[in-house]
Amino acid sequence: MRNIVTIGGGTGSYTILSGLKKLPDISIAALVSMADDGGSTGVLMDELGILPPGDVRQCLVALSEHTDIVRELINYRFTEGTLKGHSFGNIFLAALEKVTGDFVSGVEVASDILKVRGAVLPVTDNKAKLSIELTNKHIIEGEDKINHFDVESVGIKKIFYKENVKLNKNAKQAILKADYIILGPGNYYCSLLPNLIVKGFKETLRKSKAKIIFPVNLTNKQGHTRNWNTSTYVKDVEKYLGRKVDIILVNKTKPSKEQIKRYSLQEGDGVLVRDDLEDDKRVMRVSILSHTIIKYSKADIIQNMRSFIRHDSDKLAKIISAIIRK
Amino acid sequence: MRNIVTIGGGTGSYTILSGLKKLPDISIAALVSMADDGGSTGVLMDELGILPPGDVRQCLVALSEHTDIVRELINYRFTEGTLKGHSFGNIFLAALEKVTGDFVSGVEVASDILKVRGAVLPVTDNKAKLSIELTNKHIIEGEDKINHFDVESVGIKKIFYKENVKLNKNAKQAILKADYIILGPGNYYCSLLPNLIVKGFKETLRKSKAKIIFPVNLTNKQGHTRNWNTSTYVKDVEKYLGRKVDIILVNKTKPSKEQIKRYSLQEGDGVLVRDDLEDDKRVMRVSILSHTIIKYSKADIIQNMRSFIRHDSDKLAKIISAIIRK
Repeated sequence: MRNIVTIGGGTGSYTILSGLKKLPDISIAALVSMADDGGSTGVLMDELGILPPGDVRQCLVALSEHTDIVRELINYRFTEGTLKGHSFGNIFLAALEKVTGDFVSGVEVASDILKVRGAVLPVTDNKAKLSIELTNKHIIEGEDKINHFDVESVGIKKIFYKENVKLNKNAKQAILKADYIILGPGNYYCSLLPNLIVKGFKETLRKSKAKIIFPVNLTNKQGHTRNWNTSTYVKDVEKYLGRKVDIILVNKTKPSKEQIKRYSLQEGDGVLVRDDLEDDKRVMRVSILSHTIIKYSKADIIQNMRSFIRHDSDKLAKIISAIIRK
Repeated sequence: MRNIVTIGGGTGSYTILSGLKKLPDISIAALVSMADDGGSTGVLMDELGILPPGDVRQCLVALSEHTDIVRELINYRFTEGTLKGHSFGNIFLAALEKVTGDFVSGVEVASDILKVRGAVLPVTDNKAKLSIELTNKHIIEGEDKINHFDVESVGIKKIFYKENVKLNKNAKQAILKADYIILGPGNYYCSLLPNLIVKGFKETLRKSKAKIIFPVNLTNKQGHTRNWNTSTYVKDVEKYLGRKVDIILVNKTKPSKEQIKRYSLQEGDGVLVRDDLEDDKRVMRVSILSHTIIKYSKADIIQNMRSFIRHDSDKLAKIISAIIRK
């Protein structure tokens, strides 16, 4: 039995966890960012004073071994009335936080109801408003704002939380027990880094013997990681980790013309991540691209934020399976 | 194994099902009225075009063998924001109707998720707007309106559905297979009768060999059944059944002063049902009153409609257990 920890949030985590769920003989703990504050999640947080359910919901659905219809239910978005735009799963987690008294306990009950394989662990119990200080000293507060802001053209000085945002104790235990830690894939500043900058994360990672696997993003994000190459990601993430990553997964398959066309319409040209790691011994060049054209529900108000070029869950899981069984 | 069918909706069904759930060697089918259109249920119906979830929700919770926290979740009412006043369980059933495409299938999935013992069967798949024609030819439409209307002082000519409201096929099968059918307890015009007037009900009941048990209500409802005695209920319900009931359960314990005080504040004096059935051989006089003082959540916007004097689930179940094992 290998202990695998994934770190991320949102669609990227959904992708990798959906594949990992099918692997035998592994124990999965999904660490999830708590910085999300946009869309249905943001509205529920404002109105009900709860912690953000959206990213956790996606991980729960990915790891749920309940029927397809139940997984569909959790992702269902209302299209009319006062519930319009809300994902049912977000409302479900909001009600559970109210009933149990805290978000982490609510997620445990949700995991039981949804027959989740492994554990979904919010990286922190604390309210975690993501902040970025730019090189011109301007500070941007809130994940949703940061997500839409061109932080790159000014330059980032630091990414931080104003409040005391501490690593949740179950998340800490998972990191200490891990044989492998997988970073991402996903939104770099808004899903991956919000986990790594939590107080206690770096110190805990230092005590862990886990090997770190880094599936580098396939695409760059306008205003955030424009023109980044694979080496840019690796160097940058290692700053936050305080150590080197062990295995770098680089996709070697080209997206289809259709995928590139859709992606360019959304994000402009030149956003595919170029591989410049050359003969770095840690790199595995593998085919892990999904050729599925993704369709979104009209009720998904943040759909235009989600990537059209994605990793393939099963291909990614197969590579990881080969790595951990070596 | 005895097949038991309960017929009702709302709090009365919740009470009897919570007790029956604990009995061994019985199979339970709860037939539920689909006429509810008030409160959180009414808002969701109007906004989403769904069938009424409220009464079904109460039956699901009563029969759920999941953990207490899950049952609490389903009954949780939001107290803030745009979700204020909505029971989570109603939203849950609304989303399931949308995802599965029809209400009856949604209830089946909900039953699976909630580990429901037995079956909760909406009495019909059709939209069912309850109507009452008064003796002055005035027609009142909608369960919620009827619930608040003094139909008694004018006099009821008939209670009916304008639309074609047919008995659901699973409900039909349950009636045909039943060894015992229990009517109510609960709101007479708004929870019990809406089941009995569904097209096909009377005909199906005629083919069933089930014995009918009738736990007569403890209290009368202002504007509906004021000053009714036990014999009034029995005679009236038999009109709708087209046959005699077999066993009449009459409570013989007096409510406490505190209960009567609270109830009088709500409903005025003289609302306790007097027993005038005297030496009717079908009557069992038993102690089936609950002495619990009921507290409601502030978020429950229809709380002042719910009865303060109720049957005791366990006492009622014990009597029924004795009857069916004879």
